[in-house]
Amino acid sequence: MADVAARTGVSLSTVSRALRGLEGVSEGTRERIREVAAELDYVVSPEASALSGRATGRVAVVTHDLPTWYSSSLIVGLERELRPAGLDLLVRCVDDPDDRVHFFAEIPLRRKVDAVVVIAIALRPSELAKLHDRGVAVVAAGSHSDGVPSVAIDDELAAQQAVNHLLQLGHTRIALLNTIAATDRAWQAQRDREAGYRTAMAAAGVPVDEDLVVSWAEGSRGGAEGMDRLLSGRRSPSAVFAFSDEVALGAIRSLRRAGIDVPRQLSVVSIDDHPLAELTDLTTVAQDPGALGRASAQVVLDLLAGRAPRTVGPFPTRLVVRGTTAPPPS
Amino acid sequence: MADVAARTGVSLSTVSRALRGLEGVSEGTRERIREVAAELDYVVSPEASALSGRATGRVAVVTHDLPTWYSSSLIVGLERELRPAGLDLLVRCVDDPDDRVHFFAEIPLRRKVDAVVVIAIALRPSELAKLHDRGVAVVAAGSHSDGVPSVAIDDELAAQQAVNHLLQLGHTRIALLNTIAATDRAWQAQRDREAGYRTAMAAAGVPVDEDLVVSWAEGSRGGAEGMDRLLSGRRSPSAVFAFSDEVALGAIRSLRRAGIDVPRQLSVVSIDDHPLAELTDLTTVAQDPGALGRASAQVVLDLLAGRAPRTVGPFPTRLVVRGTTAPPPS
Repeated sequence: MADVAARTGVSLSTVSRALRGLEGVSEGTRERIREVAAELDYVVSPEASALSGRATGRVAVVTHDLPTWYSSSLIVGLERELRPAGLDLLVRCVDDPDDRVHFFAEIPLRRKVDAVVVIAIALRPSELAKLHDRGVAVVAAGSHSDGVPSVAIDDELAAQQAVNHLLQLGHTRIALLNTIAATDRAWQAQRDREAGYRTAMAAAGVPVDEDLVVSWAEGSRGGAEGMDRLLSGRRSPSAVFAFSDEVALGAIRSLRRAGIDVPRQLSVVSIDDHPLAELTDLTTVAQDPGALGRASAQVVLDLLAGRAPRTVGPFPTRLVVRGTTAPPPS
Repeated sequence: MADVAARTGVSLSTVSRALRGLEGVSEGTRERIREVAAELDYVVSPEASALSGRATGRVAVVTHDLPTWYSSSLIVGLERELRPAGLDLLVRCVDDPDDRVHFFAEIPLRRKVDAVVVIAIALRPSELAKLHDRGVAVVAAGSHSDGVPSVAIDDELAAQQAVNHLLQLGHTRIALLNTIAATDRAWQAQRDREAGYRTAMAAAGVPVDEDLVVSWAEGSRGGAEGMDRLLSGRRSPSAVFAFSDEVALGAIRSLRRAGIDVPRQLSVVSIDDHPLAELTDLTTVAQDPGALGRASAQVVLDLLAGRAPRTVGPFPTRLVVRGTTAPPPS
């Protein structure tokens, strides 16, 4: 390292900081140091660096449903923002309660990361205590978790935006096609979106028909089955507010198979703005999980630098009107 | 560590192997050792472990397009299979040539991983040499890369399965809606799928109309634009073989907007079996990126254990006939 310092004319500690990706080194200096280090084929041992700095240089993201657009977009945003700070991103998928128990049991056993970002997981107090005891910073992305900074949209508001659009078109028989989260997940988005639905209906003076409130499994298959259930009821809705775009696309398949025209006979709106929403002409309330990921990374960097985490207000959502909503049939 | 060994009645080296997730320890013994270590709140320093064992316990996956179903499914498969072996997965998105240069420049500078899995990236000889010089194992997932074991489907065969289906339905005016990979990507899937298209056409004695061979940007937007181009040509096709489901869904949107009925006026087939293919009733050649990810992990484990990597033949693909293909209009 002394060779690198001598060649670049900066202090040993600056070389060390630059190569470890820490703050307090200008981008130009960092680049120059990296170049010289590369020329000299200088190998920074991340292990030695971690032992001296008590930092591993790694952040873990823990998610239930990586193969979805939402989680993977969030992870991309997180990775893009952590990388310039010299932090690597480790991905851990927790598919069932056992995985989750193992993950949190391992953390104190092997301190492998400086911070953990949980996507749509409500941490138990014991889990949070374990992380904090080991000095691991924690950020909740996509939902709130007691005792940790969170980066999320306002799910209740997003639901109101969707339902108000249907109300303004003249619908009153509005169904809620909600989802049942798998065990061990945060249920908050489900609860908040249902609350938003009820608030919007009440504000418009439209009574909720409880037969039109259905919760089914997540994803498009759940959406298809939930819609079948709604169609088998005594009184059909004229519009459906679906939990997510994938649920809505499943519902639309059921409607197509039942020969029901969308939107002439039935309107559908949801939340996400998945890339396929535009393709399928789906009216939806857009959110930006990539931006949530980038903001989560900023909060991680604040926590690791010992700064108070910046306040990240609820992220904006906006209605995107496309072709699946129209006034109710007369 | 001596306490853990004394309590469990096994050797110090077994405790060390068990806690580092190495082989040669039965699952029962490993569990018992982990439990006792957890009771004693014994902290294994991954850094110390790595320094002694010359292993970091980490594998990096490098991908161009994480937010897609393909890459994220592959990563989930990889993570699920590496985890039981005690290996963590680090994700690195390389979005442009600069990212890529930085990634490969960093590897020798900071040896952070034991292995690298590249998704659909063709490594340059200099990049591969850098990795091998540092003893980093390399596996290519989803495409072939000279000098490294690869885990992939047979793209040429998959294309033949798609085109043969159209030929058997009686189509002869079959368009190829291919994609142009972003800079720095492996182009192999594009080349091989085009080769499969041409082979199938030639075998059926059907001449290829070069006006019907179009390459456009990746993704659904590229599919929509590429389809518009095909429709603006002098002679329209009666069927389209699209590079991927997302390209096909984009193409179908263009067809819907142009008032062309699928499949009565025009058939569409593609490759993937994305979850939305079933929803949108898309005929496609199914592949399983999760299985590719799991198999890639097995090859990584072989390489890290010093075994010859198992031969992973091309992964199977199969035609799934749904509602977007039919005989040509008479």
